[in-house]
Amino acid sequence: MEQMRRLLIKNAKALVGTFPVGAQRAAGAAMAQLPMIEDGWLLAEDGRISGLGSMSNFPGITDWSDLTVIDATGRYVLPGWCDPHTHTVFAAPREEEFVDKIKGLSYQDIAARGGGILNSAMKLRAMSEDDLFAQAKSRLEEMMRQGTVAVEIKSGYGLTLESELKMLRVAHRLKEALPLQIKTTLLAAHALPPEFKEDRAAYIDLICNEMIPQVAGEKLADFVDVFCETNYFTALEMERVLEAGAKHGLPGKVHVNQFTSIGAIQAAVKHKALSVDHLEVMEETDLDALVGSNVMPTLLPSCSFFLRIPYAPARQVIDRGLPVALASDHNPGSTPSGNLNLVLSLACIQLRLLPEEAITALTLNAAAAMLVEDDLGSLAIGKRASLLITREIPSLAYLPYAFGADHLDTVLIDGKPVRSGEVLR
Amino acid sequence: MEQMRRLLIKNAKALVGTFPVGAQRAAGAAMAQLPMIEDGWLLAEDGRISGLGSMSNFPGITDWSDLTVIDATGRYVLPGWCDPHTHTVFAAPREEEFVDKIKGLSYQDIAARGGGILNSAMKLRAMSEDDLFAQAKSRLEEMMRQGTVAVEIKSGYGLTLESELKMLRVAHRLKEALPLQIKTTLLAAHALPPEFKEDRAAYIDLICNEMIPQVAGEKLADFVDVFCETNYFTALEMERVLEAGAKHGLPGKVHVNQFTSIGAIQAAVKHKALSVDHLEVMEETDLDALVGSNVMPTLLPSCSFFLRIPYAPARQVIDRGLPVALASDHNPGSTPSGNLNLVLSLACIQLRLLPEEAITALTLNAAAAMLVEDDLGSLAIGKRASLLITREIPSLAYLPYAFGADHLDTVLIDGKPVRSGEVLR
Repeated sequence: MEQMRRLLIKNAKALVGTFPVGAQRAAGAAMAQLPMIEDGWLLAEDGRISGLGSMSNFPGITDWSDLTVIDATGRYVLPGWCDPHTHTVFAAPREEEFVDKIKGLSYQDIAARGGGILNSAMKLRAMSEDDLFAQAKSRLEEMMRQGTVAVEIKSGYGLTLESELKMLRVAHRLKEALPLQIKTTLLAAHALPPEFKEDRAAYIDLICNEMIPQVAGEKLADFVDVFCETNYFTALEMERVLEAGAKHGLPGKVHVNQFTSIGAIQAAVKHKALSVDHLEVMEETDLDALVGSNVMPTLLPSCSFFLRIPYAPARQVIDRGLPVALASDHNPGSTPSGNLNLVLSLACIQLRLLPEEAITALTLNAAAAMLVEDDLGSLAIGKRASLLITREIPSLAYLPYAFGADHLDTVLIDGKPVRSGEVLR
Repeated sequence: MEQMRRLLIKNAKALVGTFPVGAQRAAGAAMAQLPMIEDGWLLAEDGRISGLGSMSNFPGITDWSDLTVIDATGRYVLPGWCDPHTHTVFAAPREEEFVDKIKGLSYQDIAARGGGILNSAMKLRAMSEDDLFAQAKSRLEEMMRQGTVAVEIKSGYGLTLESELKMLRVAHRLKEALPLQIKTTLLAAHALPPEFKEDRAAYIDLICNEMIPQVAGEKLADFVDVFCETNYFTALEMERVLEAGAKHGLPGKVHVNQFTSIGAIQAAVKHKALSVDHLEVMEETDLDALVGSNVMPTLLPSCSFFLRIPYAPARQVIDRGLPVALASDHNPGSTPSGNLNLVLSLACIQLRLLPEEAITALTLNAAAAMLVEDDLGSLAIGKRASLLITREIPSLAYLPYAFGADHLDTVLIDGKPVRSGEVLR
C-alpha cells in the first residue's frame, strides 16, 4: 500500500456526513439531516483529517511537500462504513445447510445432521489458530475493499474457555495484521454447549466467574454479548452476564428480539448496554423501554433477507425519536455476507430508510454502536482519514437505489488506500 | 483486450453445465441435473470451445503455438450468464422516484410529478442517440464484468416510431461496439403514449402496421414484446401485436402476470411466444396453459426484491415439469440492477431454487429464452467460449449462498478476457 503522508481531496461533488466535531450520534428526525459540503476539499495528514471545507473557501496549499492530490470531480466523499455486529471469525461456511433448507429440511433435521451454531463450534474447536486467522483475514480484506473501515468481531463459536480465547486471540492478530479498526466481543453465551445441557446455570457461572475475568484481564475483549432468545438464553441469564461484564469494564452489546420479545430490551436498558441488536420482533413496550435510554438500536437487514424473517420496524424506531445503527451480522449460518453497500440498499428498499438516514446509520451511529465515534463515523477534523470516494454517480440516492453494483472507486483507511481506483491512477 | 487465439483451461475444480451438444433447454426435474466434469480441461480455439473433458483423460497438447494456458485449480468454470429480459437502454436513472416512494408518495403522486414509464419516455425522446449509447455502453460494461455474456435489450421508452427506432439503433451500435451477444426487442406496447390516450386502437394499429414492418424491414429487432397488464395492454391487444410480429418473423417475448392474471399466458401460448416473463401472479390455469407448450417461463426476482411485490412461484413452475429461465429486468423504474450474480442468490434465497436449478436457469434456459442456445448456455464443443472462471470457492452452492460478494475471477467472451483476474496474471 502506498504511503501518503499528506493527502488533498479536491472538487468533491460533496463531502458527506460532515457532522460537527464531537457529534456522538444522530437520533430520530436528525438522522435525515445528514450534513454535507458541496464542492468540497479535505486535507488529511498522518492519517487524520486536518482540514475540510467548500472549494469556494479553499485556503490554498503553501506546503506542497509529500502531498498527494486527488481530484474527486463528480464523486462523493463519505466516512468509511463501520460494522458494529459481525461473527467474521469462523471455521467454515455452511452452504450445505442452506441447500438442505431449500430442500425443505426442518431446523430439527438440520440440527440432527450436525448443523447450526453447534456445527460451527465443533469445526472451530478443531481448527488451528493459524487457519482461522487466514480465513478471517481474507474475509476482512474483501470487506475493506467494499468500504468497511471498522468492524466488531464476536467470539461465540468456541463455547469453551479455551476456544473462546482462541477466537478472541485470532481477532487480536487480525487487528495487528490489518489496517481497519477492530473491536472484539465475548459471546460465550451464543448457544448452550452440549456439555452443559443438564446444567445451564453452571455455564453462566463459567462465563461470569472465569471467562469474563480472564478475557478482561488479558484485554482480549471490549464488550460482552448474549443471544437472549427463546430456547437460547433468558433475560435473567443475560442480566447476570451483563452484570459480570460491567464489573470488569465490558459494556454489553446484545442479541435481542430476533424471534420473540421476552423482556430482553428492558433488561438491556436497565444494565446500560451499549447496543441492542436484531429487533425484528418489537412490541410497543420494547420501543417504550428504549426511549430516553442511551442504548443504540442496531439493525441487521441482511439477516432478515437471507432467513426470510420479518425486517426490523426501523421506521417506527426512528419515528419514536430513537437512533438506528446498521451492521452486516456476517456469519456462516444466517448472514453469509459482509457487504455493507448491500446493507445500505436493504435499509432503503426493505426498511424504508431514506438514503440520508441509512448513511447516518452506517457511519456515525454504527461508529457509536462500537465506541469508535471519536475516531470514525463522520468527516470531522481530528478523526481518522478512513474514507470512501465513489465512482461518478448522479446523486447520493443512487448509492442505495442502484443495488448490487459497485459504486466505490477508492477506499482509504487512515489516509492509505486499501483499494485504489481511477482517482489514484 | 488480450488476443488469445488458443486457450487451454486445465485443472478446473469442475466444468459446470456440460450439457450434451444440441441440448436446447432443461425442464422440471432435469433442471437440478446440472451436468459437470470434475477436475476438467477445456480448449478454446478462435473463440469457440473445441474440446473438453476430465484431466484423467486429457489427451495432451501437441501444438503449443499461440496457446495461453490457465491453471484453474480450486476454481469452477461455468458458461457465462445470459440475460434474456432487460431495458438497459434508457435515458436516466429514476432514484428520485425511489426516494419519493420511501417518503410515502403514491404511484399517482409520482405519476403526477412526471414519474414512471412516461417519465422515462419524455427523457428518452429528448436525448441524443450518442448520449443514450454512451450511458448504455457503460451499464453493459459493468454487466460483462459481472459475468453477463449475452443480453436482450428492449425498446419501450420511445413510444413513437422515431424514438423506438432510435432505441433499437442504439442497441445495434452497442452490438458492434461490445463483445457480448445482443438481441433486441420492439416493446412499443410498453405504455400507452399520452398522444393516444383517447384512441388506444390507433396506437396498436401504428405498432402493427407501421412499427413492426419497418423494424423488421431494417432488421432492427429480433422479437416483439407487450406489457400485458391491467391498466396497460389487454390480452386481445397483445394478440394483435403477436400476430403482426409473427407475420414479420419476430417471435413474442411478453410481460405477463406481474400484478394480475388476465388471460395473457393463454394468449401467449396460443401465439407460440418464445417466452412469458414476470409471472409473479399465477393461477393454476396459467400453469396448466404452459404445460405442453414450448414457451419459456422467465422470472425476474430482482424486480420483486426492489418493488417488494410477491416473488414468482418458481417451485410450482418447476414442479409442474416446466423449465424456468432467469433474467435481471434491468431498468430505471422497477429494477435498477443488472447483476446476475445477485439474481442467482435471489433465485435460491427467495425463489427456493437449488443452486443447480438456478445455474441452469441463468445459462441454458436463459440462452433458450433469447434464442442463443446454439451458441451459448452450456460448455459444449462448438459453442462460444464465453466463460466464467470463479475465485477459489469451497463449493458450487457457495456462489448463491455467499450473497453480495464477487466470486468471479475472470470473464471470457468468445475466448477473450473482458475481465482478467488471478488466473491470467
